[in-house]
Amino acid sequence: MPTRLHVDVPHAHARGYDVIIGSGTLEDVPARVAAAAPAAVYALITPDDVVEPWGRRLAAAMLASGLPTELITTQPGEAHKTRDEWARLTDRMLELGCGRDCCVIAVGGGVTGDLAGFVAATYMRGVSFVQVPTSLLAMVDACVGGKTGVDTAYGKNLIGAFHTPRLVVIDPHVLSTLPLRELRAGLAEAVKHGAILDEAYFDWIEAHADAILALDDAALEQLIARSVELKAGIVMDDVFEHGRRAILNFGHTVGHALELRAAYALPHGFAVAEGMIAEAALGERAGVTEAGTQARMARVLAALGLPASASADITGLLESMRLDKKSRAGRPRVVLLERVGSVARDADGAWTHELNAEAAQHAIDGA
Amino acid sequence: MPTRLHVDVPHAHARGYDVIIGSGTLEDVPARVAAAAPAAVYALITPDDVVEPWGRRLAAAMLASGLPTELITTQPGEAHKTRDEWARLTDRMLELGCGRDCCVIAVGGGVTGDLAGFVAATYMRGVSFVQVPTSLLAMVDACVGGKTGVDTAYGKNLIGAFHTPRLVVIDPHVLSTLPLRELRAGLAEAVKHGAILDEAYFDWIEAHADAILALDDAALEQLIARSVELKAGIVMDDVFEHGRRAILNFGHTVGHALELRAAYALPHGFAVAEGMIAEAALGERAGVTEAGTQARMARVLAALGLPASASADITGLLESMRLDKKSRAGRPRVVLLERVGSVARDADGAWTHELNAEAAQHAIDGA
Repeated sequence: MPTRLHVDVPHAHARGYDVIIGSGTLEDVPARVAAAAPAAVYALITPDDVVEPWGRRLAAAMLASGLPTELITTQPGEAHKTRDEWARLTDRMLELGCGRDCCVIAVGGGVTGDLAGFVAATYMRGVSFVQVPTSLLAMVDACVGGKTGVDTAYGKNLIGAFHTPRLVVIDPHVLSTLPLRELRAGLAEAVKHGAILDEAYFDWIEAHADAILALDDAALEQLIARSVELKAGIVMDDVFEHGRRAILNFGHTVGHALELRAAYALPHGFAVAEGMIAEAALGERAGVTEAGTQARMARVLAALGLPASASADITGLLESMRLDKKSRAGRPRVVLLERVGSVARDADGAWTHELNAEAAQHAIDGA
Repeated sequence: MPTRLHVDVPHAHARGYDVIIGSGTLEDVPARVAAAAPAAVYALITPDDVVEPWGRRLAAAMLASGLPTELITTQPGEAHKTRDEWARLTDRMLELGCGRDCCVIAVGGGVTGDLAGFVAATYMRGVSFVQVPTSLLAMVDACVGGKTGVDTAYGKNLIGAFHTPRLVVIDPHVLSTLPLRELRAGLAEAVKHGAILDEAYFDWIEAHADAILALDDAALEQLIARSVELKAGIVMDDVFEHGRRAILNFGHTVGHALELRAAYALPHGFAVAEGMIAEAALGERAGVTEAGTQARMARVLAALGLPASASADITGLLESMRLDKKSRAGRPRVVLLERVGSVARDADGAWTHELNAEAAQHAIDGA
């Protein structure tokens, strides 16, 4: 039996949605989509590197179930998560005659979910949306929460919208075709969930690192389910990121800036891993984070084959961080841990702390 | 004393907002904006043909009140309500370092409101938004309801989002610089409000046509206030256009197709006037609309100097109408009146009726 988690969305224009997790659930996608997101036509958006073996197969299964489906491919990778690619996709849907009663299905990783989600959010002022994540990063993190968007030369996800899916179907079997490096990248977000919310889960990940990397079914299902559950709990609390949801950005202030500097050649998860180390070091130096947290973080990241040290040039990253969405009046802010499993609030009770770049640099240099 | 109308928005992530209507209220914009939409910086977006005399003056007043304000100009006209112009505006804001704590102020007509609203809806996944409409069309119609968007080669407003403003300030004095043709265009939407919802208002417009066209303060304030009130009533009922809100599209199925065919050289209000005549003729021929409605519609439109007959080639417009957002499974739908002041529901209780193109053509040919 697949695991079924329900994400409740407490506002009028979006319903709650189910996240279905289980090996083999890919087979059920047509039936589940037809029930959760009835539509006149389905625009199945999938990148060139996922269309085989998953995208085309799913489109065929949809058609075989009598669901009108158009397969639309995109260029893969963060470099194509742009306004141009979004415009091309919306034009293609217009050309196909998709109406407001269509549904967009994203079959791919985090990039595809963000991009196709932004298409769904803005096509005819919003059409329904289904996520079938095929990367671990998308499964444990990006597929839940309704954030959609594209990158610009100024940074990641700076243009976008909140758009809640109607359904998310996660089949860990799909990970069999994922490069190991991408599997590792996804684990960084799972570690983050443990770091900010659940020490026991953090420790469980370290203990099960080998099983997870070996794609053990039971371990993967447990990992994905716990991460989705933790993230959904936060998202339900604060759909539009007015407050506590910001803690999901632990590791991301520095992480996003690193990605921008690397022109997105650095996988998101690797940047976040380095970002978490940097931000743990920063927290310890500021006396906010329990001593030894950075070392513990480094241990689990190393076990997963992720960067376990930070080489960031913080002052050099400052300009990139200024446009981070957590910034206030142009001053970057950062999420700091209290200890593993818990986030520290700042003196004003905020979930983020103003970043002191000089102190940050000293912390990183010593990390 | 200006009129203050409150638009309630019954969902969690947007608050209700005030619409302030009164001659001279432009002077109060900085104080009202500071109270309703506090922000680290204001991006005041205004087209090249409104920057003098209104946009620059308002930006100066904001700065004089100690509110950090960036004046950003756009190319005027529907031809520039595009994804490209939207991308340019968002880039400009990124370049200026605007954060998620900024606020976009649209100072201009309907095009500016739609375009700047889409910027606000998508900049960092949504920032706050204020409307200062300077055309009658924007005052009586576009500024209320939260619809934002851009056009594509396939049609109007096909890409966009719902994004609720924090405040709308309407100063009818601004209309003194509006070309008469644009004033007339705005009146088409007011006539529409009467036609679908309020027979007494419909008659009042006809009786006061001369005073309105002469820019009589009292007549304009009354006109704008009643239109805003009628529209707000509908919008509050159905923010995301799942049902009754569709009646605001009376005249628009044919109207949008006419605009598209004319490559937007035809002002929206003129297209809507012709569309209302066509759709009234269509309704009468279908036996849905009370006989004589088309003639009554023609009389008030003529009094306002608007098109009072329809020359539409409906079958030729069919392809354009197929992508109309009211379409279902690619079949265009149209709002039909029962009589002046009331909309007819179709056999299934829907607010729109499937368009029978051939019957439509016969109706128009006889109109």
